Amino acid sequence: MDEQNRIRVGYIGLGGRGQGMLQILLQMSDVTVTAVCDRYEDRALEGKRLVEASGRPSPFCTQNHLEVVSRNDVDCIFTPSSWTSHSTVMIAAMKAGKPVATEVGGAASVQECWDLVHTALETGVPCMMMENCCYNREEMALLNMVRQNVFGELVHCQGGYEHDLRSEVARGIEQRHYRFQHYAHRNGDIYPTHALGPIAKLLNINRGNRFVSLASFSSKARGIHEWAVENLGPDHRAAKTEYLQGDVVTTILKCARGETVVLTHDTTLPRPYSRGLRVQGTKGIFLEDNYSVYLEGRSPRLDAWDSFKDYIDEFDHPLWKKSDVANFHEGHGGMDYLIWRAFIEPLQANLKELPIDVYDVATWMAVTPLSEASIAQGGQPVAFPDFTNGLWTNREPAPQHLYSL
Amino acid sequence: MDEQNRIRVGYIGLGGRGQGMLQILLQMSDVTVTAVCDRYEDRALEGKRLVEASGRPSPFCTQNHLEVVSRNDVDCIFTPSSWTSHSTVMIAAMKAGKPVATEVGGAASVQECWDLVHTALETGVPCMMMENCCYNREEMALLNMVRQNVFGELVHCQGGYEHDLRSEVARGIEQRHYRFQHYAHRNGDIYPTHALGPIAKLLNINRGNRFVSLASFSSKARGIHEWAVENLGPDHRAAKTEYLQGDVVTTILKCARGETVVLTHDTTLPRPYSRGLRVQGTKGIFLEDNYSVYLEGRSPRLDAWDSFKDYIDEFDHPLWKKSDVANFHEGHGGMDYLIWRAFIEPLQANLKELPIDVYDVATWMAVTPLSEASIAQGGQPVAFPDFTNGLWTNREPAPQHLYSL
Repeated sequence: MDEQNRIRVGYIGLGGRGQGMLQILLQMSDVTVTAVCDRYEDRALEGKRLVEASGRPSPFCTQNHLEVVSRNDVDCIFTPSSWTSHSTVMIAAMKAGKPVATEVGGAASVQECWDLVHTALETGVPCMMMENCCYNREEMALLNMVRQNVFGELVHCQGGYEHDLRSEVARGIEQRHYRFQHYAHRNGDIYPTHALGPIAKLLNINRGNRFVSLASFSSKARGIHEWAVENLGPDHRAAKTEYLQGDVVTTILKCARGETVVLTHDTTLPRPYSRGLRVQGTKGIFLEDNYSVYLEGRSPRLDAWDSFKDYIDEFDHPLWKKSDVANFHEGHGGMDYLIWRAFIEPLQANLKELPIDVYDVATWMAVTPLSEASIAQGGQPVAFPDFTNGLWTNREPAPQHLYSL
Repeated sequence: MDEQNRIRVGYIGLGGRGQGMLQILLQMSDVTVTAVCDRYEDRALEGKRLVEASGRPSPFCTQNHLEVVSRNDVDCIFTPSSWTSHSTVMIAAMKAGKPVATEVGGAASVQECWDLVHTALETGVPCMMMENCCYNREEMALLNMVRQNVFGELVHCQGGYEHDLRSEVARGIEQRHYRFQHYAHRNGDIYPTHALGPIAKLLNINRGNRFVSLASFSSKARGIHEWAVENLGPDHRAAKTEYLQGDVVTTILKCARGETVVLTHDTTLPRPYSRGLRVQGTKGIFLEDNYSVYLEGRSPRLDAWDSFKDYIDEFDHPLWKKSDVANFHEGHGGMDYLIWRAFIEPLQANLKELPIDVYDVATWMAVTPLSEASIAQGGQPVAFPDFTNGLWTNREPAPQHLYSL
């Protein structure tokens, strides 16, 4: 911490959501940013400018993340870098003794996830994924409801990332967005965590439960090509590229305790945004797409949906009753602010356990390479690694902390 | 036909939906029922009573279906019998030269489906499945929209049978409902056709496209036991039975032309009814659960849902514009009436092709044993048989008939 007791963040990566997350961070009085880094010089300089514009001292600015993690004036690291550099940065940070949080994304290999686990165990330094959707109001109310047994015993969950990104992907060439390369070369659930994270918490994954297998299936790929031809012209590189990433990828996970989870990755067809959440137990069901629940013995009409609006106030999570969230609506309604606080406050309190830990990070990121492997083998189910090496069978529930999930 | 030019139906099976379908049939002036049959004498007699109560001559009444199919005063057969007797009755009917329609349901073995195909080819007698949902207003409007390319190239579909049947299954012992035995002994998508039938038609299955593989996953089974303990008491046989059928079974089908289909069987947890239909292409998406569509370039607000109410009138199928449907609302809103007409009218016109043919019947019914096989092998994908033996590659589109799908 600096002389004003502020946590000093080293900020690595400023493309994509990097700037938005930085602007939220710079509104917090108990945090400052002492170093910024991006592989592109202009983006690094823009980060520096944003820190200065907030009234903070000018930060150290570099294109080399190793220079950031080794600095004495950096207490922790946040890396909204590209998907394929998340692990590299996290591992470097932990080895330098710096707690580290990564933006969301999937891994490229299962080994990458093991490397994270091994590094965390060897160094004793915590790492976390900034899965903001875990702290969204609805997901937190659902967590509350599940913990209070409102849905009975959970049996099945669904969710996805259903977001029309055709323009972002096709224009990724000019905009230096790594998504373009991924869609051109890979095929799998390449962005699984927005739904998976909250669902994994509901199902106590790595704490008494775990994913045991996964199978994944891909539709044909039509969306980006068709969009690019119509919007960028048939001679544009985005129109001439062959995309391997199927338009809709469906993944099924089976849990040790018998629950099933269906994940959908659906980002290259025209559609309204949805995370398509469904939470289903022996006493009721929640469905995001009609924003409704049905709770046996409680819903007034037999076999008819109730609006979730009638329930969310009652089951609001304590974090969402705090007045500070309301000041940060621009960060996806408040969840970006809360995920920042979920990383920062345990560090301030000198806690070694973060609400999303290395086992969560490894498990959630592993869905991507496992999904690619299953698709490559025609939908063959693949065994899900136990990144806890057996600890999941008797790990305690999450520690009681305001931000615990 | 009889002297009044009425098609004479032999009616085999009167449990479950058998009576409801019979009452719709008996309101039609160009149809009569000359024979009724059920393995239980009381049900057969109740069928006889219903025919007599409609003012028709008293029908032949038996517990032996072979006596029905061989009668000279029977023109065609309908069998709403138990799932495991559908094929037996259909094969006997075709061998006796009688066109036959079966209630919906899945097969117990893939061989059973081949036997249907072989018998239909050897006898030249048509058979059909009375998949009423194919003729529901929404499904027909969607068929219209797909044929008019409103959704662009189809990429992905979903659907299911999501219907709380806990009471029906648990009370199946007393009510002689075969569902009880199936839920106690099997595990798979045991009732796939309500969503699969309409989706297969949208995707031109067996006419230029086909299902090539399938994988299926089952959640744990909790719903019926928990319901039975609470509602029938812990000592009731339904509470003491171990059910193998998972509460939620998810099945993914892959098509030769690259589309994916996700099917859900979800019948033993509390929830409102839904067939969970989703139809998705390069130009738009339909979702049943919020009764909405999004159509690129047509929906007024970018990435926001439109109510399907604003589209269904425009895309209403000609069958639903006919005034006669309105008289049959009690049959699931009219679709039960339409599926009857879809069977009867081609026979009246002496057509050999019915709108749902033996290849459809075999394909749709085969999903059940294939799903069981995949689950038994831990979600292993299984190859989908080509019941057309290659004809699907150049079969013509469905013949142009008012009831064609």
